[in-house]
Amino acid sequence: MSERQTARRRTVKLTFAYDGTNYVGWQWQANGPSIQAELERAIHAVTGETLRVAGAGRTDAGVHARAQTASFVTATRVPTWKLPLALSAHLPEDIVVSDAEEMPDGFHARKSARGKVYRYSIYTGRVRPVIERRYTTHFTRELDVEAMSNAAARLVGTFDFSAFVTELRAMKKGDCVRTIRGLDVWRDEPIVHLQVEGNGFLYNMVRTIAGCLVEVGKGNYPPKWMADVLESRDRRRAGPVLPARGLCLMRVLY
Amino acid sequence: MSERQTARRRTVKLTFAYDGTNYVGWQWQANGPSIQAELERAIHAVTGETLRVAGAGRTDAGVHARAQTASFVTATRVPTWKLPLALSAHLPEDIVVSDAEEMPDGFHARKSARGKVYRYSIYTGRVRPVIERRYTTHFTRELDVEAMSNAAARLVGTFDFSAFVTELRAMKKGDCVRTIRGLDVWRDEPIVHLQVEGNGFLYNMVRTIAGCLVEVGKGNYPPKWMADVLESRDRRRAGPVLPARGLCLMRVLY
Repeated sequence: MSERQTARRRTVKLTFAYDGTNYVGWQWQANGPSIQAELERAIHAVTGETLRVAGAGRTDAGVHARAQTASFVTATRVPTWKLPLALSAHLPEDIVVSDAEEMPDGFHARKSARGKVYRYSIYTGRVRPVIERRYTTHFTRELDVEAMSNAAARLVGTFDFSAFVTELRAMKKGDCVRTIRGLDVWRDEPIVHLQVEGNGFLYNMVRTIAGCLVEVGKGNYPPKWMADVLESRDRRRAGPVLPARGLCLMRVLY
Repeated sequence: MSERQTARRRTVKLTFAYDGTNYVGWQWQANGPSIQAELERAIHAVTGETLRVAGAGRTDAGVHARAQTASFVTATRVPTWKLPLALSAHLPEDIVVSDAEEMPDGFHARKSARGKVYRYSIYTGRVRPVIERRYTTHFTRELDVEAMSNAAARLVGTFDFSAFVTELRAMKKGDCVRTIRGLDVWRDEPIVHLQVEGNGFLYNMVRTIAGCLVEVGKGNYPPKWMADVLESRDRRRAGPVLPARGLCLMRVLY
């Protein structure tokens, strides 16, 4: 025990994937199991340490991740390269750690990130999805992908995204400025994917952008409407927030 | 009620998809829920009729289907075109009816089929799958897809597939002759898929072929070994039966 306590302390970054269907989200909550709690339990089982990990993205209930990251400071004597398999062995089948890396002191999974990539997947067609049901949102109407791409292009750049956020508490003017570096829409029949890279995202921003793009895809609004919504900075002008199940955190950029 | 009983009787073919994870398989069994039971329950709810449906493929526990078929004779006044949505509304979220079609008298989903297409999916890599975990089998070693394709080609044709069946009871000599029309192997990183079309398949035949191809993919045997196994007609010469979760009935051909 004293050996453990005097071991060199180091900062570790974990990369991990999860199926968010059965969780209340990334963050600890009283009302159900969280990804964070599962990860901290696995770390305790492997290292004996009780600690808090800092996650890069606070994904909501039902949102998935292909490569979420989290950081923590540890004095464990378990070598970093052994952590992915060791932790995964203590995690349920819907969470897996794919990588562990020692980082410079002061590294923080969220604060040090220079961006994130999210994907939203929409299953189109008359028949509801079965194999893809946990990872897509279903729309029975066909979507015009060309119109959606055209609309998406209007959000690329640095803007005030107030119209695309559902929680404005504690957000001062100027706090809603973010940079979207890329926003692509493509069809992989019968699924329409949209993938967005940005320096950061506001609460429900990706799901609201997806909701707006679907409005354009259905033909309810022309692509130009997207610029009008953006410029309005008014949440009431935007489309609906799409369900969590279609959203996946693909990558955190450093 | 008398109206129902005197309505014209017609034969209907249903096409449906399911995630087999939570089922004991296609067929009615005492030890848990079956796809067949769910389908017959939905038919009863929609038409009031208590009947048995004939499924084209008796998929095992955990095996999935993208387009399984079943037939039944009905006197319901519910129009055939309304059945997919009506039945799906009475089915759990992991089963959906995608199509219903009126067929000539005497049509039988299994006996009238001229073939089936199955796919087996293998997730490769050091890290176990999460998003794909219900639909793939995991192998940590990389697979040589070229060698697997080469081996697969040796099974295309009409042969006695005795070496690839795990249940020989009640199978007389000659009963194991089947025709494989095509067997393709390809990589969609990190997943290796193999898809086989044949006029019919023996019990566990696809999962045993998959097991043999993985042996070749790992480099445990050269592609030529596949022909040796086939010619031996000896189950003990073949590779392992791979797990059910990687198997999916893609299509039934008529």
